[in-house]
Amino acid sequence: MREQMHQRVKDAQDEITGALSTIDGHNFEEIHWERPGGGGGRTRVMEDGGVFEKAGVNTSAVHGVLPDAAVASMRGKGIDSDERRFFATGLSLVLHPRNPHAPTVHLNYRYFELGEAGKPVAWWFGGGADLTPSYLYEEDARHFHGHLKTACDGVDPAFYPDFKKRCDAYFWLKHREEARGLGGIFYDDLRDREPEALFSLADRCMSAFLPSYLPILERRKDMPFTDAQRDWQLQRRGRYVEFNLVWDRGTLFGLRTGARVESVLMSLPLNARFRADFAPAPGSPEAEMQAALRAPRDWV
Amino acid sequence: MREQMHQRVKDAQDEITGALSTIDGHNFEEIHWERPGGGGGRTRVMEDGGVFEKAGVNTSAVHGVLPDAAVASMRGKGIDSDERRFFATGLSLVLHPRNPHAPTVHLNYRYFELGEAGKPVAWWFGGGADLTPSYLYEEDARHFHGHLKTACDGVDPAFYPDFKKRCDAYFWLKHREEARGLGGIFYDDLRDREPEALFSLADRCMSAFLPSYLPILERRKDMPFTDAQRDWQLQRRGRYVEFNLVWDRGTLFGLRTGARVESVLMSLPLNARFRADFAPAPGSPEAEMQAALRAPRDWV
Repeated sequence: MREQMHQRVKDAQDEITGALSTIDGHNFEEIHWERPGGGGGRTRVMEDGGVFEKAGVNTSAVHGVLPDAAVASMRGKGIDSDERRFFATGLSLVLHPRNPHAPTVHLNYRYFELGEAGKPVAWWFGGGADLTPSYLYEEDARHFHGHLKTACDGVDPAFYPDFKKRCDAYFWLKHREEARGLGGIFYDDLRDREPEALFSLADRCMSAFLPSYLPILERRKDMPFTDAQRDWQLQRRGRYVEFNLVWDRGTLFGLRTGARVESVLMSLPLNARFRADFAPAPGSPEAEMQAALRAPRDWV
Repeated sequence: MREQMHQRVKDAQDEITGALSTIDGHNFEEIHWERPGGGGGRTRVMEDGGVFEKAGVNTSAVHGVLPDAAVASMRGKGIDSDERRFFATGLSLVLHPRNPHAPTVHLNYRYFELGEAGKPVAWWFGGGADLTPSYLYEEDARHFHGHLKTACDGVDPAFYPDFKKRCDAYFWLKHREEARGLGGIFYDDLRDREPEALFSLADRCMSAFLPSYLPILERRKDMPFTDAQRDWQLQRRGRYVEFNLVWDRGTLFGLRTGARVESVLMSLPLNARFRADFAPAPGSPEAEMQAALRAPRDWV
């Protein structure tokens, strides 16, 4: 499974960055990095592109000995083991388009194993994808969620409704009482069936990414926009930063345990704005977006 | 002491916002807010001013019953009491000038009491001020630290060296292995002498603010700058956001215990930039600034 998942995330990275480069007109910059304790990764980033203000698509496969904080976090997941040898591989992606009408999107699919290669004492899958627009286009939310549902349904029709709820719960800014975006799916510690079935879930979800997102991007990326709409987008990106730095467990875990900072913070938008006390005008498209964030709804 | 300190922070707010408005050419917007559990505050903010991109100067005096998280935090400070009635008053200020050569500055001076008015079972003072430039001007750092030292020395010459060290330790971004800025002073839980002496410390430090900062602002605010210098400033502001949202205990405590979000996050710059993997050219002014942040030094 180590090799199978690692190969799959690298293939997905190639396919996705190839398609995104074509749309943007710029290439990704590739950085190979090594983890001092074992393994490494392949980071592809684009900044100041034609379509993307910032885009990052990373894969990694790391192994070694878990730090104390990671063991504590693992026990929190209900895995009671003294085993410290681990392996982890995954794909993570965040795209921040320039156009305020084109949504930010994030995905992450990962596989984790404890123990010796070929003889895991524990293993699990995690992952998800979610959409964060600055303006509410209901057809975009339905399209995105629809593709994720189809991918999940291919393995188990019980998955999507569960993962959708978990996503809304996870990407919640408690201090703002609003969601980060319009959700998607989120799962973690998944090990309740054969590894092949859960690999198939990750595989189908990764394949679903381009069809779930590109049609949305295509219809939004060249829409005209005003300075006021750009201002609103930058403020929404400020909220994205607030979520990732204050609440995102993966980010905080990474920063506190010495992971590669540039990879952990790749998710941050290139530009963000933090106004004091800004409230959109009642009835405006901005107010409509805010209302959608405060009351997550079903899209499919 | 409650009244004395509250009056002093309001006077300082008036004096400081008056001077800053004159320099900027724009007025602060004033917001009065009430805390549901008791007390309230007077927030003054300016955004998109002439000199200041964002400026906030807040005073508050709040009282009521401590939430559980605050009791836990208090016990962490070594105050072992079941008393939950509290009073707190303070002044906090963050200025983010437009010009990349003009430094960001922050200060906070506060007084805290447990128990009934007039019969405190415990009390303490906290505070500090620190300077965060994007470009290194050693004369500015010496000027700023010099005024803080003089203010502290007026009460006890042992204060400044201690508070300067605490400031460097507090404003440290562990995940970047660099300081937020060039430091200043920081103290907390101060109750090792008569309240009048510690009030005098806060009083002198508040009086020192304008002379410590305005001459620096005056000589930097109209300097010519390039797009590249603005880009660097925005990236340094990204680091300011990283510190405040990931490491600042006051911010995290506020966000997790339901303080007024807009006041807690007033410290964030209006605009911030997060580049992946940016390194300044060796020997450049940007590299010189970065080196100063990685190795805090003595300025007076």
